[in-house]
Amino acid sequence: MKNGKSASNRIRVGILGASGYTGAELVRLLAHHPRVEMRLLTGDRAAGQTLGAVFPHLGHLNLPKLVKIDDADWSQLDMVFCALPHGTTQSVIKALPRVLKVIDLSPDFRLADVEAYAKWYGHAHRAPEFQKEAVYGLTELARAEVRAARLVANPGCYPTSAQLPLVPLLEARQISADDIIIDSKSGVTGAGRAVKEANLFTEVAEGIHAYGIANHRHTPEIEQGLSLAAKRPVSVNFTPHLMPMNRGILSTIYVRLADGATAADLRATLAKRYAGEPFVRLAPEGLSPATRHVRGSNACLIGVFADRLPGRAILVSVEDNLVKGASGQAVQNMNVMCDLDETAGLAQEALFP
Amino acid sequence: MKNGKSASNRIRVGILGASGYTGAELVRLLAHHPRVEMRLLTGDRAAGQTLGAVFPHLGHLNLPKLVKIDDADWSQLDMVFCALPHGTTQSVIKALPRVLKVIDLSPDFRLADVEAYAKWYGHAHRAPEFQKEAVYGLTELARAEVRAARLVANPGCYPTSAQLPLVPLLEARQISADDIIIDSKSGVTGAGRAVKEANLFTEVAEGIHAYGIANHRHTPEIEQGLSLAAKRPVSVNFTPHLMPMNRGILSTIYVRLADGATAADLRATLAKRYAGEPFVRLAPEGLSPATRHVRGSNACLIGVFADRLPGRAILVSVEDNLVKGASGQAVQNMNVMCDLDETAGLAQEALFP
Amino acid sequence: MKNGKSASNRIRVGILGASGYTGAELVRLLAHHPRVEMRLLTGDRAAGQTLGAVFPHLGHLNLPKLVKIDDADWSQLDMVFCALPHGTTQSVIKALPRVLKVIDLSPDFRLADVEAYAKWYGHAHRAPEFQKEAVYGLTELARAEVRAARLVANPGCYPTSAQLPLVPLLEARQISADDIIIDSKSGVTGAGRAVKEANLFTEVAEGIHAYGIANHRHTPEIEQGLSLAAKRPVSVNFTPHLMPMNRGILSTIYVRLADGATAADLRATLAKRYAGEPFVRLAPEGLSPATRHVRGSNACLIGVFADRLPGRAILVSVEDNLVKGASGQAVQNMNVMCDLDETAGLAQEALFP
Amino acid sequence: MKNGKSASNRIRVGILGASGYTGAELVRLLAHHPRVEMRLLTGDRAAGQTLGAVFPHLGHLNLPKLVKIDDADWSQLDMVFCALPHGTTQSVIKALPRVLKVIDLSPDFRLADVEAYAKWYGHAHRAPEFQKEAVYGLTELARAEVRAARLVANPGCYPTSAQLPLVPLLEARQISADDIIIDSKSGVTGAGRAVKEANLFTEVAEGIHAYGIANHRHTPEIEQGLSLAAKRPVSVNFTPHLMPMNRGILSTIYVRLADGATAADLRATLAKRYAGEPFVRLAPEGLSPATRHVRGSNACLIGVFADRLPGRAILVSVEDNLVKGASGQAVQNMNVMCDLDETAGLAQEALFP
Repeated sequence: MKNGKSASNRIRVGILGASGYTGAELVRLLAHHPRVEMRLLTGDRAAGQTLGAVFPHLGHLNLPKLVKIDDADWSQLDMVFCALPHGTTQSVIKALPRVLKVIDLSPDFRLADVEAYAKWYGHAHRAPEFQKEAVYGLTELARAEVRAARLVANPGCYPTSAQLPLVPLLEARQISADDIIIDSKSGVTGAGRAVKEANLFTEVAEGIHAYGIANHRHTPEIEQGLSLAAKRPVSVNFTPHLMPMNRGILSTIYVRLADGATAADLRATLAKRYAGEPFVRLAPEGLSPATRHVRGSNACLIGVFADRLPGRAILVSVEDNLVKGASGQAVQNMNVMCDLDETAGLAQEALFP
Repeated sequence: MKNGKSASNRIRVGILGASGYTGAELVRLLAHHPRVEMRLLTGDRAAGQTLGAVFPHLGHLNLPKLVKIDDADWSQLDMVFCALPHGTTQSVIKALPRVLKVIDLSPDFRLADVEAYAKWYGHAHRAPEFQKEAVYGLTELARAEVRAARLVANPGCYPTSAQLPLVPLLEARQISADDIIIDSKSGVTGAGRAVKEANLFTEVAEGIHAYGIANHRHTPEIEQGLSLAAKRPVSVNFTPHLMPMNRGILSTIYVRLADGATAADLRATLAKRYAGEPFVRLAPEGLSPATRHVRGSNACLIGVFADRLPGRAILVSVEDNLVKGASGQAVQNMNVMCDLDETAGLAQEALFP
Repeated sequence: MKNGKSASNRIRVGILGASGYTGAELVRLLAHHPRVEMRLLTGDRAAGQTLGAVFPHLGHLNLPKLVKIDDADWSQLDMVFCALPHGTTQSVIKALPRVLKVIDLSPDFRLADVEAYAKWYGHAHRAPEFQKEAVYGLTELARAEVRAARLVANPGCYPTSAQLPLVPLLEARQISADDIIIDSKSGVTGAGRAVKEANLFTEVAEGIHAYGIANHRHTPEIEQGLSLAAKRPVSVNFTPHLMPMNRGILSTIYVRLADGATAADLRATLAKRYAGEPFVRLAPEGLSPATRHVRGSNACLIGVFADRLPGRAILVSVEDNLVKGASGQAVQNMNVMCDLDETAGLAQEALFP
Repeated sequence: MKNGKSASNRIRVGILGASGYTGAELVRLLAHHPRVEMRLLTGDRAAGQTLGAVFPHLGHLNLPKLVKIDDADWSQLDMVFCALPHGTTQSVIKALPRVLKVIDLSPDFRLADVEAYAKWYGHAHRAPEFQKEAVYGLTELARAEVRAARLVANPGCYPTSAQLPLVPLLEARQISADDIIIDSKSGVTGAGRAVKEANLFTEVAEGIHAYGIANHRHTPEIEQGLSLAAKRPVSVNFTPHLMPMNRGILSTIYVRLADGATAADLRATLAKRYAGEPFVRLAPEGLSPATRHVRGSNACLIGVFADRLPGRAILVSVEDNLVKGASGQAVQNMNVMCDLDETAGLAQEALFP
């Protein structure tokens, strides 16, 4: 570890937005990370309270109290995770000493094109100068860039589930970049701890519905990654659904095969690309990936299936949206940025049932 | 009512397979049907028991005990509902007096092509002579045929959710018959009361997975209906998913628009086709149909959305798989066959939450 | 029907608070009531909108738009259901013409002692003069009083599940009035549609916890009923739990037997008391009542079990908190107040699964 | 570590019954235990298959294939976990070399009185000679005995949740040993992976019911522990309920205070008894323990509340039935038996949401 060293040889981290679900998930993972010390937790509405007051299941950990961001002492930190509502990190980042590494779990720095950000998020980008140095941190696809980064834009949950299977196949030109259809099903933690009628138990249990049809904000993020892979502009259909589970995203992806390519070819390409990866795995042939296979773990599991329609294939990817889709990938990125074992703090099997 | 008359002016019905979920659902609906008397309930394994022994929530109804099919007295009946495992009605039907009307909820008589049946169900059709007279009972699309039928093949749950939106659009030639992708999400009652590991609470709760990818048995049934509508052979992608809810199917259907057609055109076609229908409704623009909108009711709700991809559209349909997808549509068909008010016994609002 | 007559021989009702769950449940039940016409729906925040805007599953019904209470035209009504937050009916009622019958689903008029109300609800009773005429409407136990009432205080969900089994046994002096322990488990609709963190899907799914331990507001209501039955002050332990289901309350009640009494005696007393009741039923011996046995129906099902501890017994009661525990009992009370068939609008079987 | 040493300084363990949920949970925990090597997995029906074939989420671990118990090579092992159906370990144990340590997760050796075993489990005890040496392994209450044991009977899930709060209070004579009422709510994994109708998703979701009222097999186990603590025979009311969640038990326990004792006294006693314990914690005053606070972790969280009834108190305990209630406590016991850090392999925070 060349950077981020503390006296105790531990990386001293702060979590901005520790009172939300991704913040709590960072705490869950970092609490047993062998090389991390949590020195700062912020939560503006809960400032002054213990973490146990907002998350009783974490109350026994010996952690600092929640403070307001404005009261944070940055000098004691090596690394900051931002788990804040969109638009906020763009403002906060300006106050941070440049020596601090930053991993932002919000969408604030994910879109290289600040105009696209403005269009999709409804306000002008507040820190375009930082956008330039931000690295989009889909770890397996950008490990070298992440290693060298100071500011990592941690990918969105849906974009992670879509890009991990699609990017290698587009790069290999085995699938068409046209008419890619991504039908995603997500658990409710994807909406965070926001207190909205739509997220009440009674409005979600025993049901499913699509939302954000044709205009979900993760669309440009997905298209950005696929366009880079295809080396030309790619538009996709992305249709997310909200369903009654806490954690998990399953994306069923419908693609057209390139001339001569077969589902077996896609499988081979993905197998090769992710061979040796600790967190991205190809499902054995015939196994239909289920979100329960990855619940609570940092894994993304991918299945490849021949379609009944000639010249087409079906990809299925699953992840835990709070882990590989958010906080787990953030810890993975931290490990890469700090030259630690990439699996440190992430060595847990899925919790099933 | 010209047919099916009993002394009391009530239709005397029997339910074969009353110990399964679709059987219980028939009882639930028929118990308050103003013109029906349940005279026979069969359940081979539970023969000799009361219905309350297998379904305590129905135990207070004053109904005959369960008997074996072989012990049934057909002479007392006007109408029989068959809620039996596939292959069984094909055998049972031969023993039924021809004066009896039959509504079969199994797939036994849904495929006009008995060879297709053999291929998908793994055994030769056992009653090809009856197949010829069977009417495929998607009520809104075949009302006249149903009215004249003696033997109605009640549609499958997934095929109902796929055909109701697609058939009118194919007939109107507003969508392409190629590359139709049907991504369906189903609750667990779709699997019946079969005691299988895959249907345990612990294997389903907090998760989702696709199953029967590219080979689900409802595929030929869907394709049969769409081919008739398109007047040429149609193949589809149909990918069902199992998710943690009791009731409900949501199908998200991705289609290519015919030249010049728009999502608004599709909406207009469906609005016209289903105007005045009591059970098939178009969702108001902007409303994303949710299975909770139809839980426990006989409604199918359809939404139409422009896609982000040019020249494409998205259809969303929801139904309660046990009602419009099975027993409710069966009762609807009975009403049509017996010249009753089509909504008799079906006038319940959705149970939400 | 002597009162509440309209030109069309239908009872013209208004629902105050139609944008909440108990309001929607009233609409669900009344929409198919043969003698009711819904003339007024209020919803202060949603005033001006259709009911479909707040409850899409009810959007196809031909109902008046939501209005503010202040804009209501009382002259067109015979009966008003108040499904408002506590404290509100006490204010609203003063503006209502005395010719209007009122069924209040809130706790505003449930406690005969206005001091007790003030103590438990944190504000002085706002309409003590109306309290005097209010009838506590646990239908099976107060049918005559309900029939004669103008203002009915519809019982709370937990109190209904506790009093139906306990009151007859206390009256019969077969159980001790001391140390009654009521351990209740409730679905989330009991909390209404209030947008609170505690009711988010993510905070409820896959878990259970007790709440309001030793201080839940339904305690005095339960004690009031039991004290009347025992003819002396009764205190109880009442411990409610919140669990991941939409609908349903199960109360497990632990009682001490009076000298010489047995569980069989309790069973006999309840069987006799509720013989012929359409909505309160004794579970067959050996059947453990489940909330799924009554989901969506107006039934309360009661089980009686000998305890392993000598001299003790266990009672189990289940109900749908939105039906027999709220809106269903309100409709039942309306039927009684208006000399209608008591089951009108309530003849639905439980929705299982 | 004095015993169970392998060449590699790792404890070589076998898991009998690895194809069930408690078996899979042992694998989940042991896979990241720093001092354990899994050398043997048995699964009679799945013999010859990989673990991934029965538990895909564990398929990527490099583990031996499942074998039949009869084909096990005991010579390669230091420790055996038995996660077998009741009655089986009593037979299997005779074949095991005495040098092997054994932790049995079944009820086979939990009841010191073999006659009681025969009465409750319906068959004569098959290994009474081993019963004598068995140590009942509720770790916090029997650490010294566990440390010295060869054969540990791992406690049942319900008994763990009941004894941890009650034993210290009975020993301190602060509560009466009479009329203890234990109302427990359990997730479905408590039933294992057994394929039974009662455990289907559709039979459990959206509902709750009591089962085994007054005759659940965990009753004598609870009474055994409480009798030892009270130094006289104790009978309890134990009423378990099945509810829709995968993991978790919440026990609400109603007790009578000894003369002069208060709820605060109980709290103080438990606080003292469990001070410094890594896995048993007292909930902060005012916090109602929820199963979500311990999901996936080895923690048991206990709350103490004054009752509204004078002279009574309420205890609430929560645990994950598969962890502290089964496999986690088994690993904890292994750590104690092998002089390892007691938390090794168990240092995970609860997975919430």
